[in-house]
Amino acid sequence: MPTDFTATRALFDLPEGVIYLDGNSLGPLPRAVPARLQQAATAEWGQMLITGWNKAGWMELPTKIGDRIARLIGAEAGHVVLGDTLSIKVYQALASSLEMNPDRRVILSDTGNFPSDLYMAEGLCRTLGPEYSLKTVAPEDVMDAIDDSVAVLMITEVDYRTGRRHDMAALTAKAHSVGALAVWDLAHSAGATDVDVAGGKADFAVGCTYKYLNSGPGGPAFIYVAPRHAETARPALSGWMGHEKPFAFDLDYRPGAGIERMRVGTPPVLQLAALDAALDVWDGVEIADLRARSIDLCEAFIEQVEAACPMLELATPRDAAMRGSQVSFRHPEGYAIMQALIARGVIGDFRAPDILRFGFTPLYIGLDEVAGAVKILAEIMETGAWDRPEYKTRARVT
Amino acid sequence: MPTDFTATRALFDLPEGVIYLDGNSLGPLPRAVPARLQQAATAEWGQMLITGWNKAGWMELPTKIGDRIARLIGAEAGHVVLGDTLSIKVYQALASSLEMNPDRRVILSDTGNFPSDLYMAEGLCRTLGPEYSLKTVAPEDVMDAIDDSVAVLMITEVDYRTGRRHDMAALTAKAHSVGALAVWDLAHSAGATDVDVAGGKADFAVGCTYKYLNSGPGGPAFIYVAPRHAETARPALSGWMGHEKPFAFDLDYRPGAGIERMRVGTPPVLQLAALDAALDVWDGVEIADLRARSIDLCEAFIEQVEAACPMLELATPRDAAMRGSQVSFRHPEGYAIMQALIARGVIGDFRAPDILRFGFTPLYIGLDEVAGAVKILAEIMETGAWDRPEYKTRARVT
Repeated sequence: MPTDFTATRALFDLPEGVIYLDGNSLGPLPRAVPARLQQAATAEWGQMLITGWNKAGWMELPTKIGDRIARLIGAEAGHVVLGDTLSIKVYQALASSLEMNPDRRVILSDTGNFPSDLYMAEGLCRTLGPEYSLKTVAPEDVMDAIDDSVAVLMITEVDYRTGRRHDMAALTAKAHSVGALAVWDLAHSAGATDVDVAGGKADFAVGCTYKYLNSGPGGPAFIYVAPRHAETARPALSGWMGHEKPFAFDLDYRPGAGIERMRVGTPPVLQLAALDAALDVWDGVEIADLRARSIDLCEAFIEQVEAACPMLELATPRDAAMRGSQVSFRHPEGYAIMQALIARGVIGDFRAPDILRFGFTPLYIGLDEVAGAVKILAEIMETGAWDRPEYKTRARVT
Repeated sequence: MPTDFTATRALFDLPEGVIYLDGNSLGPLPRAVPARLQQAATAEWGQMLITGWNKAGWMELPTKIGDRIARLIGAEAGHVVLGDTLSIKVYQALASSLEMNPDRRVILSDTGNFPSDLYMAEGLCRTLGPEYSLKTVAPEDVMDAIDDSVAVLMITEVDYRTGRRHDMAALTAKAHSVGALAVWDLAHSAGATDVDVAGGKADFAVGCTYKYLNSGPGGPAFIYVAPRHAETARPALSGWMGHEKPFAFDLDYRPGAGIERMRVGTPPVLQLAALDAALDVWDGVEIADLRARSIDLCEAFIEQVEAACPMLELATPRDAAMRGSQVSFRHPEGYAIMQALIARGVIGDFRAPDILRFGFTPLYIGLDEVAGAVKILAEIMETGAWDRPEYKTRARVT
């Protein structure tokens, strides 16, 4: 049965008069979340108190939800766990990788990677010592830069600015061929594209849940460890929840079984409850259908914008196979244009220096919204409505 | 005006028929939290979507709430920030300390410290290399073990099992006298005792909020960096939210101003909203009043239990100055006794191998509950009601 995207759309609570093309920054509120949050706060925390860890199943939420996400990223069940933030999960994956490849000292990434991934790698190298380094090349040069000096390749599958998609299987195969490991950041691909970490042979994968998985602001991150590494990867961030027996309160750390060892501290139960409710939206969704519809939406947007707004330059690859589920255009006045759009109810995002970014999430966006957004964008460009001082004052967060 | 603890008690939603002496594991639900959570989910996330980061002030929550906690731990305003879990904050504090003391290789702690702190230190040492080590001594031997080999002293102010309280000022002074830094874990003292990180000259302090600060299961942790280190401590976990300009998306990390650099990833807005509401309880509370009443409650409990239950052995120091806000007793059948108590509505906690642990939080516990709990405990001990098979089967979480 093909996925019913009219039905999924009805599961979201979107404000009237808004065309929301920024689900790749923060997904909108699924209707089921407020009630689940209330349940977690009042019926669970309020009434069960400390016994909620057992009675309400809080302790198992990180792995139970991990299995729900595993299906969406092509991972084997039992090999994904939730917790912390994406930056922390990047650090865990990198530190484990470097420890598993002890004769090498280079983390390879690209300049299109999300800066926090690069910052975490920098921090890890500084902790490890001056012989360790982070090397970054241009996105299109990654394949050629993978050589036998590389300990671990760290790549974000879909570029947060341009929407360019890296070929996970090909880059990972090249990494493996020279004895390197591969860590994949799925921040802009989990829930957006047909991710396949098992098929792509990723060693580690990490991602966040507040974008296309709609868990709400600051929702927890996830980490995947390939089954072949599950019992050998040692966590550098060795917290009690990743211990073999957390409640034995032993003085020495022993890693827990498999993916459990990637847990660190006490799980954020309220945010996990919100995420759990948000994932209900995915129950009837086939990823192949999602991907097909995402491509339709992006193609339609590109075609219509290029026809109506010739002054905008496409920053996203034209080949659908090379894209995630977003479309970006460049314009020197991109910031002001985005503010004018937002003032008219079309919410996208601006990324320095000149990128207008639009995310297309088939769960709640259809061809009507594509046409509606293009109409407003075209009006703004034709009338120069963006050229007002209040659209040029930059807020701290955009 | 003295603190009105009748008023603070009315701010909590405690189940009928329960005497809750486990606020040192998980604080109960403040009545203001559910509405604040709903507001964050529906009015903020649901309606503001991505603009909530500015319009609802989400981005500033970690430092704004940090200032509210600063008052409760004797910290200077502007030097506490929220985020992550306590284990992650321990790692940050230790990694920064070791980097600030580069000629030394030893982390000194004690065997009464919470195991996750020790595990995180172990993990950090493994990442740093074989020349680094974690040394643990008995709690009473810490002072003598501080010598000029020690890079950083890592101590939890109040012992999670026995309630024994270390002397922050004295141990920190000794550490400084030999050129070591001091990291203090306030998990069992923030909101429970008269913590004074500035007066005690702590270099770093960390703590969790889901115990005596009542933020709910998995609420975020906090970190304090002494003002003298604010601009020099370099975070090993260098995430984008700790960058000088997160939204410039620079490729290189530059630490943010002061405490901001201890932020890592995207803050958990829903859990922070719950915490913010939970902290309203503290608005009229003077810490000196809290401490005085905490001592009264603990003294009364010790006196009454020792009179009624001579077979229980006090595990907590008899001198109030040497205690936090909990009282522990030992008994070989401690686990079964605690299950019998819980079955009768007195919720305390068991900690292996033989500790019955009772937390006394003046915000919602009074002398009536002390007497009520002792009455039930005495009945259980006199009748041997704990000696039933169902009380001896151990659940995963206790």
